[in-house]
Amino acid sequence: MSLQQETATTSATRDLSGDALIQEVVDSFGGASPERFRVVMQSLVRHLHAFAKDVQLTEDEWLAGIQFLTRVGQTCTDTRQEMIMFSDTLGLSMQVIGINHPATDGSTESTVFGPFYVGGAPTYKNGDDIANGAPGEPCYMSGIVRSTSGAPIPGAILDIWQADSDGLYDVQRPELEAAQARGKLAADDQGRYWFWTVKPEAYGIPTDGPVGELIRGANRSPMRPGHVHAMVSAPGYKTVTTHVFLSGDQYLDNDVVFGVKQSLVGEFVRQEPGTAPDGRTLETPFYVAEFDFTLSPESTNGTSTNGHA
Amino acid sequence: MSLQQETATTSATRDLSGDALIQEVVDSFGGASPERFRVVMQSLVRHLHAFAKDVQLTEDEWLAGIQFLTRVGQTCTDTRQEMIMFSDTLGLSMQVIGINHPATDGSTESTVFGPFYVGGAPTYKNGDDIANGAPGEPCYMSGIVRSTSGAPIPGAILDIWQADSDGLYDVQRPELEAAQARGKLAADDQGRYWFWTVKPEAYGIPTDGPVGELIRGANRSPMRPGHVHAMVSAPGYKTVTTHVFLSGDQYLDNDVVFGVKQSLVGEFVRQEPGTAPDGRTLETPFYVAEFDFTLSPESTNGTSTNGHA
Repeated sequence: MSLQQETATTSATRDLSGDALIQEVVDSFGGASPERFRVVMQSLVRHLHAFAKDVQLTEDEWLAGIQFLTRVGQTCTDTRQEMIMFSDTLGLSMQVIGINHPATDGSTESTVFGPFYVGGAPTYKNGDDIANGAPGEPCYMSGIVRSTSGAPIPGAILDIWQADSDGLYDVQRPELEAAQARGKLAADDQGRYWFWTVKPEAYGIPTDGPVGELIRGANRSPMRPGHVHAMVSAPGYKTVTTHVFLSGDQYLDNDVVFGVKQSLVGEFVRQEPGTAPDGRTLETPFYVAEFDFTLSPESTNGTSTNGHA
Repeated sequence: MSLQQETATTSATRDLSGDALIQEVVDSFGGASPERFRVVMQSLVRHLHAFAKDVQLTEDEWLAGIQFLTRVGQTCTDTRQEMIMFSDTLGLSMQVIGINHPATDGSTESTVFGPFYVGGAPTYKNGDDIANGAPGEPCYMSGIVRSTSGAPIPGAILDIWQADSDGLYDVQRPELEAAQARGKLAADDQGRYWFWTVKPEAYGIPTDGPVGELIRGANRSPMRPGHVHAMVSAPGYKTVTTHVFLSGDQYLDNDVVFGVKQSLVGEFVRQEPGTAPDGRTLETPFYVAEFDFTLSPESTNGTSTNGHA
């Protein structure tokens, strides 16, 4: 290469702005590996720059965004994932779920994972009370875990977590030493599960952090309709991460994270004091909810990464 | 509203995916205040969702992004701004600078602010050595701060910071108790400034954090050409945040943050041991750099937020 060519080549990499800058940044990711990482990063760069250009983002706004994202990251702890909550409130989480779970095969639909899952939940057996002291009206939940073929899935694992009657998850109560309204249990040999918990109440997502400021600035309601989280899995089946929503909840059509699917609204039926479905006698009103989960075999389409049928 | 109408209205807010979901999220920001916040957030939502749809983002990729951004936030400290570095390496910072500083009025061009500015830099007077013990070859910098009218600006403030010969800023050396190669000084009554420092060396941005992983994954060089940061301000003038780049640096055409502008490349001239421009005698080789800064009056266009001419 002659000196003249060199100069011509290099001068194109200075004084970059607008579309020329975008192209240079896109090109800088041209050697990214693996290929999928390259594709994702180049698309991210194009869309991020297009956003800045479309709104003619000011430097103060850019800095506010930097500081906001920094604070979102720093608000995250072992028991609170503010960045997921940010994604949830932007509807991005549901967009990704829609892309990956078209749910056209009859399996239970998916919804947001949410920011309050923690690993290592206590193990229970069917019939136990996973509330473990959480405040709220008693609620008996039961159902069957089935394959899309209709066959029950014995031993399917249900990982359950939910808010109590104060709208709080156990991890939002730092004084607790044990999990409440959170637990794992296995379906029986006929795919049946049943347990006691408390009625899940509607709640506002935490507004004491940066995402709360965003929601207030947008004059949006922070409320979510009451729901029980369930992550249902079994060997050979795709795991379903979903909610069972509280029927009749006033926020079913105004969920701050856009997560409600009609098929996930369970029937929570109020009962007067008396005998529960498992024979237990209650002296206070209680709720009975029945919800079946349906899993699809891992081999039903080509998107499984497990590599076995 | 009849019950039937209510049902029709509310059912549109469940089972959202794809473009219907985007519209619902955009609408949720319809009441955001002020108006500009609404515009920015609605555009962000559209572009973010478009990105997810374009690449058909998987849940694993979404989670990797969440975890990456969380770690970027958590890597930030009082002396390190990893989120700015992320923006810089995506070229977003330079895009925003290009939008806001077209620099068509003859003022000194702007470039990235970078992640290493800290407030409260020590004050020096002209002729002082702001290196304050930083390792490197001595470098004498001088010039004039002028208005776009050509008139010198007496008392203009220069806020200077730079890396030393190890490619490190003082804030990257936790053992230091005082600032090095960082300081503020005022131009004299003829707009002139002069000070000693060390020659700024090319360096790699910190790669021990999440942005470093991104850069490595992209097979990109982490290097920046040597430069001295300058934030130059004076009452009645728009502040310029810029660099003076080291002439001849091998990374001028491969800056990891896309920040090089030809007009900002200074002439750093190596001198044999002897007498410096200020009469000082040096027994080692040293560098002499001259660079003039030009500020535009705040009243030259309508974008000033100060509200006075």
